[in-house]
Amino acid sequence: MQSPLIKKLIEAFTCLPGVGNKSAQRMAYFLLERNREGGEQLADALVAAMRGVKHCSRCRDFTEDELCGICNSQARDNSLLCVVESPADVFAIESTASFKGKYFVLMGHLSPLDGIGPEDLGLDQLKRLVDEEKPAEIILATNSTVEGEATAHFIAEMLKNNEVVLSRIASGVPLGGELEYIDGGTLMHSLSGRQPYRN
Amino acid sequence: MQSPLIKKLIEAFTCLPGVGNKSAQRMAYFLLERNREGGEQLADALVAAMRGVKHCSRCRDFTEDELCGICNSQARDNSLLCVVESPADVFAIESTASFKGKYFVLMGHLSPLDGIGPEDLGLDQLKRLVDEEKPAEIILATNSTVEGEATAHFIAEMLKNNEVVLSRIASGVPLGGELEYIDGGTLMHSLSGRQPYRN
Ligand SMILES: [Zn+2]
Ligand SMILES: [Zn+2]
Repeated sequence: MQSPLIKKLIEAFTCLPGVGNKSAQRMAYFLLERNREGGEQLADALVAAMRGVKHCSRCRDFTEDELCGICNSQARDNSLLCVVESPADVFAIESTASFKGKYFVLMGHLSPLDGIGPEDLGLDQLKRLVDEEKPAEIILATNSTVEGEATAHFIAEMLKNNEVVLSRIASGVPLGGELEYIDGGTLMHSLSGRQPYRN
Repeated sequence: MQSPLIKKLIEAFTCLPGVGNKSAQRMAYFLLERNREGGEQLADALVAAMRGVKHCSRCRDFTEDELCGICNSQARDNSLLCVVESPADVFAIESTASFKGKYFVLMGHLSPLDGIGPEDLGLDQLKRLVDEEKPAEIILATNSTVEGEATAHFIAEMLKNNEVVLSRIASGVPLGGELEYIDGGTLMHSLSGRQPYRN
């Protein structure tokens, strides 16, 4: 009842995050019934991106050039370096339009159980970059998870002999969050990390 | 910060049903970071399906051959014809393994506002098919929506001079519900509990 080509397409869709068999089926039928042109454009975009997107030679973010747009920009502050886990984090921070420094993208976090060590995160490259560019401050903006904390800690240890201010993004109650619904760990952290009140 | 190739891929993903900008971004980054091979396979499957999947010349269901597997099967009961709106409905009914007849797929429903009339649903082809094959019973299994009911009504009118029992799938499908999303048990119940069609 489902032709081999349709079966194959449905199966291929399930490689996407958050897409189970039911959604995959819906996607396949939708494109076949209503938007074959869109389906072909998606195929083109996939091939172009899968083959053309590499990593920036300075910061490891995704780019199709030797250097990404941010590393290549004259407008960015070279003295401020923000270390994040993934390109999506760069995008999220850039969307706030509140950061004018540069980035280093780990493409993951330390995870001994998965065999992900310092070399997989390009930490030797980060060390060289800090030695050469000598930023004044490095913001450790890894995730506020056990692995993210461990990774930030490892980097801080690695750079302890460099003359650079290390900072960590604040964790606490999200803006608009209600204390009642925040988990205990976050609350504790947010209490101990309290700041002088400013109007 | 997002290279042109990534921007284009994210935009292309939003052509999928239920995929907004945020999910599209997640899909793009996921494939780039963790499954480029899967991304290329998806592209191949898309091109193959968009170009290779046609409509069965008898029932209009999707197929890559002249006749779909069901129309081509000797095991199916030619005297029982089930009329549905979409290929996903055929798949849903087949999944219950409780129907041994054949299908006719409208690829939509009557919708004057969208300019979808009888000719777009292949109703002339359905009429010819009924004239030639002379099924004993036709199950009108269009969706239990206003448009689905109107389409069933239209088909019943069209076939009123044919010697055939018309039936409508039974209640069990919730009002306003679409076959594609109904669980197998309910579908089976609604098939076996079908009632003679009444205007
Ligand atoms: Zn870069
Ligand atoms: Zn067929």
